[in-house]
Order: sequence, then structure tokens, then C-alpha cells
Amino acid sequence: MTPSDTTTAGVIGLGSMGLGMAQSIARAGIVVSGFDINPAALSKLAASGGNASRSAIEAARNVDVLVVVVINARQTDAVLFGPGGAAAAMKPRGVIVSCATMAPDEARRLAAKSQAMDLEYLDAPISGGAIKAAGGALTVMASGTTDAFAKARPVLNAIAATVHELGNTAGIGASFKMINQLLAGVHIAAACEAITFAQKLGLDLREVYKVITGSAGNSWMFENRIPHVLDGDYSPRSAVDIFTKDLGIVSDIGRSRQFPLHLAATALQMFLMTAAAGMGKDDDASVARMLAQVTGQDLPANRQAG
Amino acid sequence: MTPSDTTTAGVIGLGSMGLGMAQSIARAGIVVSGFDINPAALSKLAASGGNASRSAIEAARNVDVLVVVVINARQTDAVLFGPGGAAAAMKPRGVIVSCATMAPDEARRLAAKSQAMDLEYLDAPISGGAIKAAGGALTVMASGTTDAFAKARPVLNAIAATVHELGNTAGIGASFKMINQLLAGVHIAAACEAITFAQKLGLDLREVYKVITGSAGNSWMFENRIPHVLDGDYSPRSAVDIFTKDLGIVSDIGRSRQFPLHLAATALQMFLMTAAAGMGKDDDASVARMLAQVTGQDLPANRQAG
Repeated sequence: MTPSDTTTAGVIGLGSMGLGMAQSIARAGIVVSGFDINPAALSKLAASGGNASRSAIEAARNVDVLVVVVINARQTDAVLFGPGGAAAAMKPRGVIVSCATMAPDEARRLAAKSQAMDLEYLDAPISGGAIKAAGGALTVMASGTTDAFAKARPVLNAIAATVHELGNTAGIGASFKMINQLLAGVHIAAACEAITFAQKLGLDLREVYKVITGSAGNSWMFENRIPHVLDGDYSPRSAVDIFTKDLGIVSDIGRSRQFPLHLAATALQMFLMTAAAGMGKDDDASVARMLAQVTGQDLPANRQAG
Repeated sequence: MTPSDTTTAGVIGLGSMGLGMAQSIARAGIVVSGFDINPAALSKLAASGGNASRSAIEAARNVDVLVVVVINARQTDAVLFGPGGAAAAMKPRGVIVSCATMAPDEARRLAAKSQAMDLEYLDAPISGGAIKAAGGALTVMASGTTDAFAKARPVLNAIAATVHELGNTAGIGASFKMINQLLAGVHIAAACEAITFAQKLGLDLREVYKVITGSAGNSWMFENRIPHVLDGDYSPRSAVDIFTKDLGIVSDIGRSRQFPLHLAATALQMFLMTAAAGMGKDDDASVARMLAQVTGQDLPANRQAG
């Protein structure tokens, strides 16, 4: 019998990432329960072969692996260890796979709480977006004990194309995610600064995209986000609010560790300015729209709109 | 008879880029003369089949195509149009291929001066570094008349893997280069900020390199420059001073066009701080070394040094 024959899983948080992950787990033949406060997400899970639970504790009941995909450390703490907390319902020695982006210290704190309840904890932030989540093709940046990795393996295999095993203690996975988010956030803001400046200089923006993606100025984010600007489509693939949150955490750590982060701090201000202009729930390429509005530029309009 | 059978070329400025370009032109079977104030560069050119000239004007004597690869607009102006200027020696209707990074307005000014002397002008900044220059594999971001492109074609084919033809007036090529340098400079500084922060968080830097280059936080510059940090090798492939210059030009244009460039301005300060700490002539990844020094981090040392 392979592990996936016997492993049972729960997923708490069925947003654009969590729902896809739960569906990927179900598709791998693992019995999976899920919970979210949004009933529509529960229905989608039920339609994909998962069990829709009525509470976090029900989703966690007797599972081997509990995946928590909520917004931050505070929510992760609340659903696991707060009133009606899910951790207490898990199978003894079960493993919590914690996916929210959070400070390394928070990951260590949650790992200690898990250990005190005789549970394993995998510090396992994810990267890749909703489409890769639905396809079971995420990147996981994980740290935790060998035992935690072994128990979580069937679930990790179901959700991820790449699992980076980064160390045997909680906090390391979270630190890697911080570094990735620092760069990702700066690169999105830089892409938006560059494309609006190109507009100001009167350049053909599609030509700019073509030249830059073949040049030393390219980044994964420039290549991925600038098409949203070219199409004038700011429907959220990943929202501005995600980066005010994540660069906020990065900045907090920099301050608490007394480490200057010039570019991360500057990019954070650009995302905050975009959120302040009313675009917090829109696609993070909206930083370009904010800069265009302030400077009186006309970026391409969405041809599908209006 | 193909154009390259008859085209003659001159190259002014035989630094790490210009020498490789002159050698690539010679290798393509084009008669090429070169001039630089550095005699060692002249000897290298002579050893590679080019003609070592004793002055800019001698290198330009009766050539169809004159490639100018000096540091900035002021030097380009001086070697072409100053006392003993090279432009006057060229074949009538010859084409100047101007490769220095400069403001679009400067490119337009130099094009007008060329036109007044009955010469063509190709606004043709380059990208790719010394190794690609030597291999005839640069990227050229060029604008100018159809005639200028046609006359320069044999030389462009000799030096470049990719020639972006971006418009029929000078200034457009320079503008594209500005956008590329804005992104490149921000991405180098961001890579250095991220890798030193990773060191502060106690992460394995080679593992960080592996994870980030496979993640959404990647950039061409992160992938290219961070190995210098991992090897502790700050011998200049491209120097800090290049980016204090290029981001300085970007910032000047932003100010003159009244366009805010938060990240470019911040990155410029980081390069200036690195130059101020005495590393202006070192590799641009030295921004990481500067940050490490300030924050008391130990980055990898160069195992080949000492």
C-alpha cells in the first residue's frame, strides 16, 4: 500500500490557491476535506471529489495532513489554535502544512505550538499562482523535520511540481519566501515604473515588451505582468493587497533585524499608493495604472471592457 | 558583390565592448580601422586583422561606417565633431553608428549635426557585454533612416545577433536603452539587497540562488550577477560606474520630463553609495559587498584571492 492509499488530508482556506490545491489532492486519490467561510468555494470542492466541511475542525477531523492556506500568520494561528481550533482534531502525530506567507519568527512560533500538541509542522510557503495551484504544479519552499516531510509527501506530490527542502527547522521556508517576495515585489513595481516611463517617452509599448523580454533588463515579473498593462486588463490574477501585505512583512523583518531594505521599502510605498488610489483589490500591475493616472499618461485601455 | 565586400569601417573606442566589436567586424571580412588612446587595445586590434590608427580622424578616413563606442554623449560629440573630429574624414554620405548610452535629446542633437555634414546617423545603443561583443552577438537597439540601416547593415550583421529596428528617427534607440538600463540597474541593486538580506536571515546563499532562479522572483540580472557574489569575485565584468552614469542619465530625463522614477532613483543612490565606498571600478555586484560591509555581514570570499 503506498502512502497515498492511506493518507487523509484536510485543507483550510479555499481561496484561489487553496481550492486548486484541494482539487489537486482529490485528483491524486487522497481523501480530502476542505473548509472555507465562502459557501461557493465549498460547492466547487464538493463538485471536484472533495468533502465540503462545515467548520475548520470538521475539515481537520482525524486527518494525517492538514494544509492551511489562509492570508497570514494571525489567521493561521486562529484556525489552528484559536477557539474551535482545527489542530486538536487532527490524527495524533499528524502534520500541519502551513502555506501562508509570514515572518520566520511566526513560523517558528506556530511550529512550537504544534509540537506542544504532539503534531508535526511543515513551514511550507507556496509560489506559482492560481493556475499552477489548480494544476498541482506549485513550487513549495519548505522546511521541517524529516518526519514532517515524509508524512506530508503524498500531499506535497499532489500539489507541487517542485518541493524545495530547505532545512529541518521551521522559519527557513518562510525566510526563502521573504526573499522571493522582496524580489517579486520590487520587480513588479520596476516593470510598472519602466513601462509608464516608456509611454512618457513616446515608445511603442508592445515593441518595448518585445525588446526588454529579450534583453538584460528582463525579469520573470516583467514578462508575466506587463501583458496585463498592454491589454489594459487589471482583473486580479494577484492583487495589489497581496504585495502591500508581503512587502509589509519584509519591511517589518528588515526593521526588527536592523537591516536596510531601500528598494523593498520604495516598492512598498508604490503598492500602498496604488491601494490608496482605490486599486487594492485589482491586479498588481495596477501600479502602472496608478503611475499613469498621476502623470497624465494614457496606457492601453481594455478592449473587452465597456 | 555583396555590401561587405566593399564596405569599409572604423571603430572609435576600443574598450571591452569596442575592441570585441572591431574584431567581429574584421572577422566578417570587412576592412576595419580602429582608434583608442590605450596602445594595448590598438595592438590587440592589429593582432586580430584590424588596422591600428594613430588618431580618431585616421580611423575614420574615407570609411562608409564609423562605429563610435565611447563612454557618453559628450565624448561621442568630441570625437566626431570636436577639434580633429572624425566625422569630417568619413566618406560622403557615410553612416555613424553611435553606441554610447545617452539621453534621447543628445542622440537627436548628434543626428542633426551629422545630417548638417551630409552624414547618416544611426542611434544604436548596444546590450550584451564584452563576451557577446567579442563573439559578434550583441543586441542593438537602433533607430535611424532606412538608408542609414542599409549602409550600416554589413557592420550590424558582424557585431550583433539581434538588431531591433525601432523607428526612423534618432532618439528612439536611446529611449529603449534608457528603459533597459532603468530595469537592469534596479534589478542588480534588488538582487544585491535580496542576497545580503538572505545572508542576514542565515540562509544558504547557493540554495537561495537555486530557489530564486526557478521562481517568480528571478531576473536576468539576478541570475547573471549573483554568481559573482557567491564566488566573492568582484573583478569588473561591468563596473559600478557604468550604472551611476546610466541611472544618472535616466534620472536626468525623468526630472527634465517631470516623471517620477522612485525605484531608479533609489537604485542610483545604492550605486553611488557603492562608488563612494571606493568600489566604482569594481563589478556592479559590489552593491552587495557595500551592503554587507555596512551591515556587518560576511559574504563569501574569493577563494582565488590572497
